[in-house]
Amino acid sequence: MARQPELDDFRVPYFGDGKKKNKFSLDGFDPAAKPFSAGSKDADKTRLSEIGAKLDIQQERLHAQQQRRVLLVLQGMDTSGKDGTIRAVFHDVDPLGLRIVPFKAPTPVEMAHDFLWRVHSQAPAAGELTVFNRSHYEDLLVPTVLGNLDAQAFEQRCHHIRQFEALLAYSGTTIIKCMLHISKDEQRVRLQARIDDSTKHWKFDVADLDARKQWDRYQVAYGEALAATSTEYAPWYVIPANSKTHRNVMVAELLLRTFEALKLEYPPAKESLKGIKIV
Amino acid sequence: MARQPELDDFRVPYFGDGKKKNKFSLDGFDPAAKPFSAGSKDADKTRLSEIGAKLDIQQERLHAQQQRRVLLVLQGMDTSGKDGTIRAVFHDVDPLGLRIVPFKAPTPVEMAHDFLWRVHSQAPAAGELTVFNRSHYEDLLVPTVLGNLDAQAFEQRCHHIRQFEALLAYSGTTIIKCMLHISKDEQRVRLQARIDDSTKHWKFDVADLDARKQWDRYQVAYGEALAATSTEYAPWYVIPANSKTHRNVMVAELLLRTFEALKLEYPPAKESLKGIKIV
Repeated sequence: MARQPELDDFRVPYFGDGKKKNKFSLDGFDPAAKPFSAGSKDADKTRLSEIGAKLDIQQERLHAQQQRRVLLVLQGMDTSGKDGTIRAVFHDVDPLGLRIVPFKAPTPVEMAHDFLWRVHSQAPAAGELTVFNRSHYEDLLVPTVLGNLDAQAFEQRCHHIRQFEALLAYSGTTIIKCMLHISKDEQRVRLQARIDDSTKHWKFDVADLDARKQWDRYQVAYGEALAATSTEYAPWYVIPANSKTHRNVMVAELLLRTFEALKLEYPPAKESLKGIKIV
Repeated sequence: MARQPELDDFRVPYFGDGKKKNKFSLDGFDPAAKPFSAGSKDADKTRLSEIGAKLDIQQERLHAQQQRRVLLVLQGMDTSGKDGTIRAVFHDVDPLGLRIVPFKAPTPVEMAHDFLWRVHSQAPAAGELTVFNRSHYEDLLVPTVLGNLDAQAFEQRCHHIRQFEALLAYSGTTIIKCMLHISKDEQRVRLQARIDDSTKHWKFDVADLDARKQWDRYQVAYGEALAATSTEYAPWYVIPANSKTHRNVMVAELLLRTFEALKLEYPPAKESLKGIKIV
């Protein structure tokens, strides 16, 4: 009997493991796989809603304690489902304790600073669960594919990212990074659907087609970026994402496991409140 | 047959209406009333979920257009249900398009600026639906009750608030402000429940009891603050909030009506995308 897949099978090896340059590529992961599916779309939805209820409790404890912070980074090609993941995974989580940060093309003011400046300012505060919808990894991937970042500059940025994430992690932030992995063919179907439904045109930027032309270069750049920035304190996971319900269940499971490892409890009762009768 | 209550019956008269000082007091509103209840708690929940689905569509259009902004301000005494309202009313709204801003006691840096500085920086951007969980109104209410703001300074702050909200409104922000109105007895029950359940102690600050001792002064201050800052471009509504399900339905109805008045549509189809086949 085949071994059950484990979340760690989808974790990108930590940078520097084995003391040699990591050989890592996205080619080893099938975007159409559904290793954590509950069996059907409906079963996945049921499973997601069970996990969602547990995530809600975990997030409340995080908020109650006001100590730890949790950061989920979502990356992926256009139409890979970052928006849909956020909507589905956090449907049952209290919006009070959740902060979604979308990173768009940098503004002139942001461009006038180092590439981590705007990211740092959005890092989660004590008690917060923050989701980065795209992130500082765009500043690694896009210029690499466009040929504006040579190998040395790429290594330099990866170094800065590792050090930045280490700062967050050792200051109380639990970091988890997910790359939503779809196939080129799945992207074709999804982009076409946006074109064919004119009420979805607002989601479509013709520039997205340029990125699609560079598909293979993006896959290579992702492989290199993930390998160089997956660390024990900020690991990358590859999420097979052709199936939307599988993608949601897997991200939710991963996040729940991450929360559970923190062993969060509600703060202890306050002795000073014992026996008080409100008048 | 009695006339059906209308949302506008709960709107605080606009400042300056009738060219005389507004005579407005919270005394005219019964916190236990349920004028917009669907008949029972369960019926209210069903109704809320119908409204929630519509709010979700409205919010998506707002986001798609990237032009208008919507700001909901929530105020109320401790335990009046600001957190619970946010959780319930926005349960079906996509977290991508929603930003919740809690205002706590100001930090030293915030204190070093005028009282609207930190508020302005959190105003909704184009396409955003933002909820203020407490707001600049705390800076009017608390010092008034504590005796640190005399009548002239109170009027001055109200003037600044009206001008500030006018700036937001005439720059494309639709503002709606809700005061969650509970009775002193209802607050007693809710505070006692937090004390009796030790897992809820983290929500409890003994200082809350000081505010309760000033209940009557707060009610008067609220009345004056609402009367002086309810405007056509940023109206205040009093929400009877002893019943949680009624409170949720009423806030949701009000917000939905506000959205519908904007007549938001999805942006028009892009001619440039017509007939494109993705390869």
